[in-house]
Amino acid sequence: MGKIANKYFVTDPYKIIENGFDITQNQKSESIFSLGNEYMGIRGFFEEGINAPSLVGTYFNGVYEWNKEAVNSHYKGIIKRGHHMVNSCNFLYTRIVCDDENLDLAHIDFNSFTRVLDLKTGLLTREFVWTTLKNSFKIKIKFERIVSNENVYHTYQKITFEALNFSAKISVLCGLDPTILHWGKYNDWTVIKSSALNNILYTRNATSQTIATTFSLEINNSYSAKSVKIGKIIAKEITLDLEKNIESSITKHIINIVSKDESISSKDVIRLLSKSLRKEQSKKLSFENILSSNTEFYDNLWKYSDITIEGDPENQQGIRFCIFNLAQCYHGYSENDNIGAKGLTGEAYSGHAFWDTETYCLPYYLFNDPKAAKNLLLFRYHTLDMAKKRAIEVDCKGACYPIATLNGYESCDLWQHALTQIQPTTGVAYAIDHYVKVTNDISFIKEYGLEMLIEIARFLASRGDYNSKGNYYGYYGVMGPDEFQLMVNHDTYTNYMAKQCLGILFFYLEYIKNEDLESYNKTISLTALTEDEIKQFKDIYEKMYIIYDPKTLLYEQHMGYYDLPHIDIDKIPRSEFPLYSSWSYDRIYRNDMIKQPSVLMLMFLYNSNFSVAQIKANYDFYEPRTIHESSLSPSIHSILASQVGYMDEALKFFSFSTRLDLDDYNNNTLEGLHMTSIVAAWVNIVYGFGGLRSDNVSLKLAPTIPSNWTKYSFNIQYLNAHIKITVTAKKIVIESDRDIEEGIVIYKYLRDIKKGGNVFERE
Amino acid sequence: MGKIANKYFVTDPYKIIENGFDITQNQKSESIFSLGNEYMGIRGFFEEGINAPSLVGTYFNGVYEWNKEAVNSHYKGIIKRGHHMVNSCNFLYTRIVCDDENLDLAHIDFNSFTRVLDLKTGLLTREFVWTTLKNSFKIKIKFERIVSNENVYHTYQKITFEALNFSAKISVLCGLDPTILHWGKYNDWTVIKSSALNNILYTRNATSQTIATTFSLEINNSYSAKSVKIGKIIAKEITLDLEKNIESSITKHIINIVSKDESISSKDVIRLLSKSLRKEQSKKLSFENILSSNTEFYDNLWKYSDITIEGDPENQQGIRFCIFNLAQCYHGYSENDNIGAKGLTGEAYSGHAFWDTETYCLPYYLFNDPKAAKNLLLFRYHTLDMAKKRAIEVDCKGACYPIATLNGYESCDLWQHALTQIQPTTGVAYAIDHYVKVTNDISFIKEYGLEMLIEIARFLASRGDYNSKGNYYGYYGVMGPDEFQLMVNHDTYTNYMAKQCLGILFFYLEYIKNEDLESYNKTISLTALTEDEIKQFKDIYEKMYIIYDPKTLLYEQHMGYYDLPHIDIDKIPRSEFPLYSSWSYDRIYRNDMIKQPSVLMLMFLYNSNFSVAQIKANYDFYEPRTIHESSLSPSIHSILASQVGYMDEALKFFSFSTRLDLDDYNNNTLEGLHMTSIVAAWVNIVYGFGGLRSDNVSLKLAPTIPSNWTKYSFNIQYLNAHIKITVTAKKIVIESDRDIEEGIVIYKYLRDIKKGGNVFERE
Repeated sequence: MGKIANKYFVTDPYKIIENGFDITQNQKSESIFSLGNEYMGIRGFFEEGINAPSLVGTYFNGVYEWNKEAVNSHYKGIIKRGHHMVNSCNFLYTRIVCDDENLDLAHIDFNSFTRVLDLKTGLLTREFVWTTLKNSFKIKIKFERIVSNENVYHTYQKITFEALNFSAKISVLCGLDPTILHWGKYNDWTVIKSSALNNILYTRNATSQTIATTFSLEINNSYSAKSVKIGKIIAKEITLDLEKNIESSITKHIINIVSKDESISSKDVIRLLSKSLRKEQSKKLSFENILSSNTEFYDNLWKYSDITIEGDPENQQGIRFCIFNLAQCYHGYSENDNIGAKGLTGEAYSGHAFWDTETYCLPYYLFNDPKAAKNLLLFRYHTLDMAKKRAIEVDCKGACYPIATLNGYESCDLWQHALTQIQPTTGVAYAIDHYVKVTNDISFIKEYGLEMLIEIARFLASRGDYNSKGNYYGYYGVMGPDEFQLMVNHDTYTNYMAKQCLGILFFYLEYIKNEDLESYNKTISLTALTEDEIKQFKDIYEKMYIIYDPKTLLYEQHMGYYDLPHIDIDKIPRSEFPLYSSWSYDRIYRNDMIKQPSVLMLMFLYNSNFSVAQIKANYDFYEPRTIHESSLSPSIHSILASQVGYMDEALKFFSFSTRLDLDDYNNNTLEGLHMTSIVAAWVNIVYGFGGLRSDNVSLKLAPTIPSNWTKYSFNIQYLNAHIKITVTAKKIVIESDRDIEEGIVIYKYLRDIKKGGNVFERE
Repeated sequence: MGKIANKYFVTDPYKIIENGFDITQNQKSESIFSLGNEYMGIRGFFEEGINAPSLVGTYFNGVYEWNKEAVNSHYKGIIKRGHHMVNSCNFLYTRIVCDDENLDLAHIDFNSFTRVLDLKTGLLTREFVWTTLKNSFKIKIKFERIVSNENVYHTYQKITFEALNFSAKISVLCGLDPTILHWGKYNDWTVIKSSALNNILYTRNATSQTIATTFSLEINNSYSAKSVKIGKIIAKEITLDLEKNIESSITKHIINIVSKDESISSKDVIRLLSKSLRKEQSKKLSFENILSSNTEFYDNLWKYSDITIEGDPENQQGIRFCIFNLAQCYHGYSENDNIGAKGLTGEAYSGHAFWDTETYCLPYYLFNDPKAAKNLLLFRYHTLDMAKKRAIEVDCKGACYPIATLNGYESCDLWQHALTQIQPTTGVAYAIDHYVKVTNDISFIKEYGLEMLIEIARFLASRGDYNSKGNYYGYYGVMGPDEFQLMVNHDTYTNYMAKQCLGILFFYLEYIKNEDLESYNKTISLTALTEDEIKQFKDIYEKMYIIYDPKTLLYEQHMGYYDLPHIDIDKIPRSEFPLYSSWSYDRIYRNDMIKQPSVLMLMFLYNSNFSVAQIKANYDFYEPRTIHESSLSPSIHSILASQVGYMDEALKFFSFSTRLDLDDYNNNTLEGLHMTSIVAAWVNIVYGFGGLRSDNVSLKLAPTIPSNWTKYSFNIQYLNAHIKITVTAKKIVIESDRDIEEGIVIYKYLRDIKKGGNVFERE
């Protein structure tokens, strides 16, 4: 802990502002100023190029490549080759020359630099005044960039020039550059068709996914233009006649359409995509159209998902930056998209989605966009076959969900994670139940959920084992959420979650059988579930071993944990962090140090199953052993600290959660935004200070308020109602747009919630 | 278990005979007919080439290459790149053409094929009669091959032709082929100088090790010859005038000299090696000289190291094949050589030496060639600096010996072995003590041993930990000898061996301090050993945790082992072996199945520390859980079964040990000979049936005799005496070439052993 803030951006309620350009911050800013619309993402790189460390990155959700290097292992169950989200064509490619000088902010003389990301529109603006070397021409330049949330194929880039002290020509190259290297090393794109004349480019990767990109230019002043081809780059070379004090602009309208279907031949895909391109072109969407539809999109976001914090402008900006990026990264546009660890803002973690999606991200979508939440679950439904294939590969039955994936298939080549972490699978079952608890969408269970729950139970009943005496059941050779304990037995998190998964299955089997026998029979027949299997699941459920001591109220993290050598984590020199880099790999695993919550994670997920006294006891025992090396750890601790009344601790752990990336606490924002930390900031406020609990039958709120906040509010959607909760030191105001018959538990008691305002005392 | 013999060779007391050629057995035969002299090894491939699966392999002890592929891991402590023993120049390169037909046993018409390896000379002979297609010429051809044990640089190849029904020309190409591919893929040899005229070739690999090879030919009949160069191959093309019924022969004398020094420039190394070549050439060693010196070498071997078995000709041949190959692979020629898992007979296991050297192989050398035993230990002394470097890399102190190595540096890139297996290091300390116990060579302790023991103790005191309460010490996150239990805590073998290592250190510290204070002080000063460290070692020694139950007499293999899910190993289908290939990698590790002895291994190594009742109890518990997937496992079980009186089991486990390779029980002899299994066969007879015990102050013998043997004998060297032990159903005859003042325990009592014959009753 004790992370250090690197303050760089100006604090503002709805904007991210960079005043003046510090080249050493360039890559971090590229991540911060990323734009996206779930379909695709663009890092905030300088389109005109810069001779400095920079990651020119454009990514399409679900567009991936097989890794170049096969996995060097012949052991069964270890994947043969991983995959990664692949960097694509730079469709903002621009080069600018004036007065014989190339515009490059690493070398030119410039001033009045500002860059602004507007969280109300998604418009990114950058301005500065360039003074040329030879003739001291002063040119004011503004770059604007916007991606459409409604029409996800469409992007606009606009460059405006104003000659301040001269009239002369300026040359601008606007094009498409398919030569971008992924990981700075590889370019896997084959140009299967390109036309510099028509500004159209078809690129296809080794997985046969294909991207069609086209652009058109609108220029508001006198110019000449010609088509050029520089290697694989296609572009228009425009010569503008700049007149003193008159603005000239080039507006580039880009359309990107992806075919993710890997089975279509390159000939057919061109036909298909060119038809789609024509259709999109015919919509004649202008820059203004997109600005306006984006404004509407974000108005809606701030209306229904805003969090306001009075008295803390930094966290106010921070949490809005988080909410904005959640919308950019994922808002349920497609059932086949997921949330990569870095969203669409960088190449670290290979674009993979982890169990974070179901465990950390889902609550945000459950309470802000239930359709998006459903789509996240459908991603797992659509990849059920791959999970079933994977289960066979690892000598199990049912469905084994991957620890890291883009396309649904396991991509993690570290056996010590891929073969031992069961939480992706239990997380899916947990999420299904969570989704239905919050939405009452029982049709989801009938159509998709029950089938998944059955396959998950089969996996859980084949991966675990009875102990030698046969008197209890559990998981051997696993790694729980705490990734500093490897190949352990009877990990409490794993055993407990598995037991809950079986319980969830029993509940819905019974429920659907009673409610809709036909649907029940259909799923039983589809999955060929037998009575013997159910009997086996029930025996496992009964005998699942949870190591708990009613005297101390402690759950042992896993069998033998208490015996492990103790490390005083406060005595580890700061210079040794991150430990993965400075400690011998095995050394990390042989002591009682914890990377991120495990028993406490359970107490977050199944909060209502534990008493405050139990949570307190386990918090007191485990937190001092936790180094929070995962950026997800502090939020969970903050939430539980709030619950047990450790407000100072709650604030300490919350202190950097909303601004982890803005203030670059981990010194690695340059790799991309930490999407799961971003959602954890929301979770931290809503579940932590707001005291929301959604794991029981009734929704519960038990708000506290940090002492430096005068007022805060957050929004949730719940059972088709939009609800705004405003908390002050003394009051809780709950505004709903409809009656909620089911009521909401406020602190200890179930309360009626009527349409309009409902006021409660703060406890 | 239940391995199946593939009988192919003729049974003979001192010969390995192949009558008729089965091409499907070709690669296995190449391994079986390997020749070697510790300095180098040649597989028994057909020098004239064959169009069939074949591994043309020549290897030089300690000549290695860095692996092509770097290890794809950024974790600390995981090696960056491994290394492997590299296949070298084929210096037996031959091509034969007669009657427009190329001699290739895969295609020609031939009969009367025999191949014989003579264990009394090391001469390999192959004969057959070739009938050509066009003119039905019948030619009798004999190939002979011998490598010198005394003059290790020298090899002879002799080819004898006899035209049986014609007179005509035959063309023979004799040369050096440096284009051999390692692993069928890579050739890393750069020819830095070659002369076809002078038959000389210098090849240098990427590690800058250099081999100089030269040859000369002697031809006993009329011929013409010219020098040829085919790519990198240099050769003489000889045309012999074959006359009917007259033998013509080509005798090729090859000299190979290696410079292993990686620091010499290629210019200097040529100068150096060419001088050495000239020196060797000047010795004018003939084929007959080498045959005669080899005969002497093997006479000596059979005089002092033979094992005779009456009534069991197959085991008789088998054990002699083993003893012969031990001499071929290692006989203490150099302090820098070691024993690879496949010796010098193949490329599997990359030529690496493992902890097998100290634990399994050393006893053979201790009792047959104490100088060789010393040299094996000196290998570890000469690589102490690398072990110290490795300890630092893994965040420890002292010396951490590698799990797999050729050059002394760790080459195992599987962290789950390299970072968790401590037995290479404890094995070195055990071996030092074992060596001194058997030889009384206390000077070894003074010059080398004490320093190694101190560095080993430092490693052991830094790799382990006290438990959380601080009341006991042990090793967390380890894999003991049983490689089916990974990342376990308080592995009994590991803890026990570590405790013994510290005890060994204390003993010799005290001993040398009393006997030779100057030497003691020198080592203390050299290693900067402090009193505090000794105190720490003593505390660890006292608190080392050994999980033992005096009621059941059982040692738990590791903490938590008893709880592990039980597998009935008899129910695993035969088709699933080897499990590494057919079971998901993680599945192997989460049950009570054992790959090879761990607690029982301890009871073998420290046999005198355990009562027969303890051994019996642990054997009864652990053996039924053991699948013997390591070829080392059966011998240890056979030895302990003998000791506790399970003679049927002892014989069952012994049944294939001497002929594991000859009868290809594991169906993988084609990859090379199993050197450790070969030595285990010796250990099985001498420690198992012979009942030798060498872990206590007095040597002990407690012979039993298998029921189908009428008599057997074995030899040991002990305290400078050559002793032959002959066992029959009723008697034990011990013939010694000098009085052994220290006596030998026979069964329970210490007996005088006088020069000449000593007769005891069998118990």
